[in-house]
Amino acid sequence: MTTAEIITIGTEIVLGQIVDTNTAYIAETLTKNGIHVLFTTSVRDDAELLKSALNIAKERVQLIITTGGLGPTENDITRETVSHLFNMPLIPSSEPYANIPQCADTLHESAMKLKSIPAGALVIPNEHGTAIGFALKHEQTDLVCLPGVPREMHQILSSYLKIYKAQHLAEEYRIVTRQFHTFGMPEFEINKLIKECDIHRNSIKTMTLVHDGIVTVNVSTSSLIKEDALQSLDTAEKTLRKILGQAIFGTDDTSLEHAVFELLKEKNATIAVAESCTGGLVSDKFTNIPGISDYFLEGIVAYSNKAKINILHVPEDYIKIHGAVSEQVAKSMAKGIRKISGATIGIGITGIAGPGGGSDQKPVGLVYIAIAGDNFTEVKKCRFHGARISNKHFAANTALNMTRLKLSQLFNPHQGKS
Amino acid sequence: MTTAEIITIGTEIVLGQIVDTNTAYIAETLTKNGIHVLFTTSVRDDAELLKSALNIAKERVQLIITTGGLGPTENDITRETVSHLFNMPLIPSSEPYANIPQCADTLHESAMKLKSIPAGALVIPNEHGTAIGFALKHEQTDLVCLPGVPREMHQILSSYLKIYKAQHLAEEYRIVTRQFHTFGMPEFEINKLIKECDIHRNSIKTMTLVHDGIVTVNVSTSSLIKEDALQSLDTAEKTLRKILGQAIFGTDDTSLEHAVFELLKEKNATIAVAESCTGGLVSDKFTNIPGISDYFLEGIVAYSNKAKINILHVPEDYIKIHGAVSEQVAKSMAKGIRKISGATIGIGITGIAGPGGGSDQKPVGLVYIAIAGDNFTEVKKCRFHGARISNKHFAANTALNMTRLKLSQLFNPHQGKS
Repeated sequence: MTTAEIITIGTEIVLGQIVDTNTAYIAETLTKNGIHVLFTTSVRDDAELLKSALNIAKERVQLIITTGGLGPTENDITRETVSHLFNMPLIPSSEPYANIPQCADTLHESAMKLKSIPAGALVIPNEHGTAIGFALKHEQTDLVCLPGVPREMHQILSSYLKIYKAQHLAEEYRIVTRQFHTFGMPEFEINKLIKECDIHRNSIKTMTLVHDGIVTVNVSTSSLIKEDALQSLDTAEKTLRKILGQAIFGTDDTSLEHAVFELLKEKNATIAVAESCTGGLVSDKFTNIPGISDYFLEGIVAYSNKAKINILHVPEDYIKIHGAVSEQVAKSMAKGIRKISGATIGIGITGIAGPGGGSDQKPVGLVYIAIAGDNFTEVKKCRFHGARISNKHFAANTALNMTRLKLSQLFNPHQGKS
Repeated sequence: MTTAEIITIGTEIVLGQIVDTNTAYIAETLTKNGIHVLFTTSVRDDAELLKSALNIAKERVQLIITTGGLGPTENDITRETVSHLFNMPLIPSSEPYANIPQCADTLHESAMKLKSIPAGALVIPNEHGTAIGFALKHEQTDLVCLPGVPREMHQILSSYLKIYKAQHLAEEYRIVTRQFHTFGMPEFEINKLIKECDIHRNSIKTMTLVHDGIVTVNVSTSSLIKEDALQSLDTAEKTLRKILGQAIFGTDDTSLEHAVFELLKEKNATIAVAESCTGGLVSDKFTNIPGISDYFLEGIVAYSNKAKINILHVPEDYIKIHGAVSEQVAKSMAKGIRKISGATIGIGITGIAGPGGGSDQKPVGLVYIAIAGDNFTEVKKCRFHGARISNKHFAANTALNMTRLKLSQLFNPHQGKS
């Protein structure tokens, strides 16, 4: 199996001024293509440091992917450093570059820089921008240089992987992975169930990851024959679905909101959300999904009591007697938004995100989540223990998960737990 | 100046299953404390790979910070690897660990593991969890091991830096940085203005970064004497404020929504938001700020036309004649939300986030943003060119920036542009 290292080039990353999301994208893409990422490194825009990082990578992996440093400015050092290190002079590439402005005189020098690649390297055209990518082989090492702009990087990486696959046909698909995302079961319980079952056959490996209440089980296996690996994975999936049941809401790229979206489509149902402590986060998550507008009707962020009373018609007495953070108010919010929107399902969320606003009776992290439908209103009392933004995410995910479970039962009363 | 490398330990990072945010946090914190981060590395939960990464780091930096691999499971290899590599046997530390369950028999082995550190290392207690951190010196290298859970890592890093500062008193503050966040001016124009002015004196360095329309100018300088460095920075700040004027909305940790929040407090004004294409993102951004509830009254995510008409009282004719994505509807949404909430300022946003829904007349990325107040309603037509989520963020930031500029003028009519 090909071993790889990802090197991101950018002072802003090493200074912590931006979070490097390119590495995760490249790592995931390489893994899916059966490439074994061993290390990832970030380095300043400094030719000497980049040279040393490339030299170390050359010694420990077969494939080096760099990202960044391919722009037109003086700080963009990747081309020059690679050229110098591998003793391959920079030459103008002969590709036509539709994306590089040809006429602007002032851009001439920049354009020349953007067009140049180390002699002998393979050009990988950039369909979205001006910085071309390139791949080269030096001794035993394959080196691929991608730009840092995510959209451009994605496309050039994808183009490179087509070349890679053609070269490595025999080795392809030796490792396969599938991720199973769950909600509602603690990680230790999932690990206990996995340990007790017979999933770890056929070189199946599992690993759990947690994020905002979502526990992801990563299942992987490898085999010389793709079909064998996929069959092992299918068998493992059956076992996993048996022990985790409805806790699994999706695989691979499926988010919790996406799982709800699929159910809304399947059941031809619509939804509307009344949020207090989550402050619009549930609506935001829904509206990140293309095509949601046929199913998500509206959201109300009823932050003030006045908004709860005037827009959602929460009885003023409920707030006076039980407080804005109460079972009664959550239910009333869910019913209210359902009524005014005409949606099949209404969600109501009220709680204390923190850090202020807590008391002994109603501590920070206390959240009531209600969901209302044609002939039911359910409410769940939750207590989260994170900071403000983390509490918002846990509450939003809990609401989405309640909706998912309810939707899946609601219109198929015979579909019980497995 | 101390040079440093950050090593994050976790197979999930190298597989790209999670985005590593710890590195950015640690890098930024170290930089602020005058430590010069040269490299960051991520490595699988594999003792041999971690050993090789530690050996390389030892040769190229003075301070190594690791994060992750300090939990109780078999995959947590940091303690054992460090112990083996530096020949420092693991011993139970004598610190009392309130956070480790002492009574649970089944947890005994885990607890023992969590308590152990390499002999000679300094314990750094964990106030939020069970995994303690530790620091040790081996030959010329300082090594600090932090857990991977962000909240725990933050606290232990902060504890370590107190120790570090006490040790490095003389060297402290040799580098100082300040970030200036701007909105509304393109990056190339900012760079042009910076190049033309006389900011680059007293070893002042500048660098620009872009994120969702926000252009950040990072200004740094170094000096043997802290006061000298700060004075250079103050002089640079004056120059920068002169050339960038109102485009600067904040420094360092200030977000755009935070800048609006500060103005709302200063002017004793309240705000409410009616969103269509941004889908709750503006409300979500506001409600991430602790204490916003006195100023942010409510948000309506009027995704459907029905919601725009029924809740926000947008005249049905406007939608029929001009379309839901139009200047008229944006203004009407801003006025509507202002009226029903009673807020000082109302924001209305309507547009096409994409990927679907566009036409020749109204392409994807077309967004109208309106803001309404006591005696004004303003609207801005924008065209963004990203994917769906990116368009949402650009639109949300543009709305926040319009609000900021309006708020700063509104109650101080004599405060013009500089």
